[in-house]
Amino acid sequence: MSEFHSKIKTVEWIKTGELEGVSRMVDQTLIPYEYKKIDIKTCGQMYNAIKTMIVRGAPAIGISGAHGAALCAIELLKKNEQNFTAELKKGIEYLNSSRPTAVNLSWALNEQLKIVNLGGTKEEITRALIENAIKLENEDIEINKKIGDYGAQIIPKGAAILTHCNAGALATVGYGTALGVVRSAFANDNTIKVFADETRPRQQGARITTFELVEDGIPVTLITDGMCSYFMKKGMIDVVVVGADRIAANGDSANKIGTYTVAIAAKYHNIPFYIAAPKSTIDMSIKTGDEIPIELRDEKEVTMINGKRICAEGVNVINPSFDVTPNELIAGIITECGIFKPQELEKLFMKS
Amino acid sequence: MSEFHSKIKTVEWIKTGELEGVSRMVDQTLIPYEYKKIDIKTCGQMYNAIKTMIVRGAPAIGISGAHGAALCAIELLKKNEQNFTAELKKGIEYLNSSRPTAVNLSWALNEQLKIVNLGGTKEEITRALIENAIKLENEDIEINKKIGDYGAQIIPKGAAILTHCNAGALATVGYGTALGVVRSAFANDNTIKVFADETRPRQQGARITTFELVEDGIPVTLITDGMCSYFMKKGMIDVVVVGADRIAANGDSANKIGTYTVAIAAKYHNIPFYIAAPKSTIDMSIKTGDEIPIELRDEKEVTMINGKRICAEGVNVINPSFDVTPNELIAGIITECGIFKPQELEKLFMKS
Repeated sequence: MSEFHSKIKTVEWIKTGELEGVSRMVDQTLIPYEYKKIDIKTCGQMYNAIKTMIVRGAPAIGISGAHGAALCAIELLKKNEQNFTAELKKGIEYLNSSRPTAVNLSWALNEQLKIVNLGGTKEEITRALIENAIKLENEDIEINKKIGDYGAQIIPKGAAILTHCNAGALATVGYGTALGVVRSAFANDNTIKVFADETRPRQQGARITTFELVEDGIPVTLITDGMCSYFMKKGMIDVVVVGADRIAANGDSANKIGTYTVAIAAKYHNIPFYIAAPKSTIDMSIKTGDEIPIELRDEKEVTMINGKRICAEGVNVINPSFDVTPNELIAGIITECGIFKPQELEKLFMKS
Repeated sequence: MSEFHSKIKTVEWIKTGELEGVSRMVDQTLIPYEYKKIDIKTCGQMYNAIKTMIVRGAPAIGISGAHGAALCAIELLKKNEQNFTAELKKGIEYLNSSRPTAVNLSWALNEQLKIVNLGGTKEEITRALIENAIKLENEDIEINKKIGDYGAQIIPKGAAILTHCNAGALATVGYGTALGVVRSAFANDNTIKVFADETRPRQQGARITTFELVEDGIPVTLITDGMCSYFMKKGMIDVVVVGADRIAANGDSANKIGTYTVAIAAKYHNIPFYIAAPKSTIDMSIKTGDEIPIELRDEKEVTMINGKRICAEGVNVINPSFDVTPNELIAGIITECGIFKPQELEKLFMKS
């Protein structure tokens, strides 16, 4: 497999001293207008960065959470906190409450919690949390590249790939899940192209996916969310690949709102619909997608665009941020360990 | 049936003298920020008003076209045009080229052309065109109310009705087709409610449908286009009712882009999907929806919102303004003559 190098590093631990550091991340609320990095220095700042979607995308908020746990330990160490372990656990719990749907956040924070539970001096725990955050960060890119390589195998030559939202470099540390598949496929066949759903309300497809793909020279056509069926009917879409925020044991997959609609349209047109996600997105503790908590966000995300109201005053709004695609609509789940039928996820955990 | 009075008059012929008049219309590009009427005084102004969507909605642009033909005759009369009939026919042809998909425009212009072909003096033809424009305008509201009354019969008590785009008072002269069904149903049962799709790219659902329904006190929840399946799965949508821009002889129906996606989602959830449209929307000259011309509009409608770019530079865009819902997805077509299965439209024409 040839390798495709994305220029983007979404979130990165920057060492600033002995047992000191910051989490440097792209401020994604500014994309595509500005590509600017900011330094997150405290646990509270990280909570806000995740909550307000300065950083977003399930794997990226997982790594950010791991960074946040390390930042929390550094803060507590600096102020010589007596209840170090208890306060650290509170901080981890706090970070975990920033967003509910993506399981990668609680997965990564749980990995950090295991470190805390191993015990040691404040310094030892802090050092171990920093080292583990960096390890998870580096692994994320490796995992993405494996997902990309497996996924590239199901992309036909010259295919048009439809994706929804952004499961790209900016949703991960730096390569992408769904767009990792695109990048790996493009490295082998530069005749493939992407159709990107705008992805209202927050327009991650328009803002972030087009930005990433244009930067990397991969042809991308922006469409509005309702258009997917039109292009499917015309035979202009060969395969759908999207990311996921949480996958239940039976393969039901939560992803950005609108994904379920795309999956239904794909089924109607006999177009294969794939999920690309790391194993850490799979939550074997829940049987079906009905158990996945769906975040409801501020109605202003629907009623306002770029600071201007787009509808009448007095309208009701419900703004679910995710929906669940049932396993029957999913052709396969592309992971770093291979491609699995949604009903076969258990195999993935028996293997490891 | 009780009657619901909408406060809106979208387009109206205003007599300004003997054989003189203007077409007074709501400037819909300003909704919901401003409810302002402008006077269209010439054939050229009417072409631009239709093309730039100052007036939009299949029945409304039909009536506007009829007004435009009358304006054209008035202009030619004033300048004592020697080739009156030939120039008038050119003007009608020009108006007909303003937008391609909605058949109501060519239907109404053809009604005016019949008047022209009856012959007479310039004054007689002009007077007849004005009278016919006013007649078609008045009939449109009556037709809508009949559509509303038939349609109300298929709305269950307390139903939540999903609609896409705006097939309301502002898409017609003053009552609406899909929203005419809503208004008639609401007059009998004020527990019904509406879910309105935003309808990107031009957001007629967010801008216009919410405006109309809030004005009339009918409860409306705004959702983004991708959300429809989420609410269907939750059992929060009972029936879908949308308008149409052109219906083929087999019942395949063109409507605003995104409608087809909603229809597929409705089918998947076993939710009935209805079209509400006047008989003038049915084009028996074409067998199937494949023959309906689909307007492609400026890519800026997709890439810009309220004057601000929402995506990266360098992205490709294709912006089809309509899609075609195949007859197999349509439970019924609600007309002023009753409700018909899409495959039974011939009956509608045998009757008349």
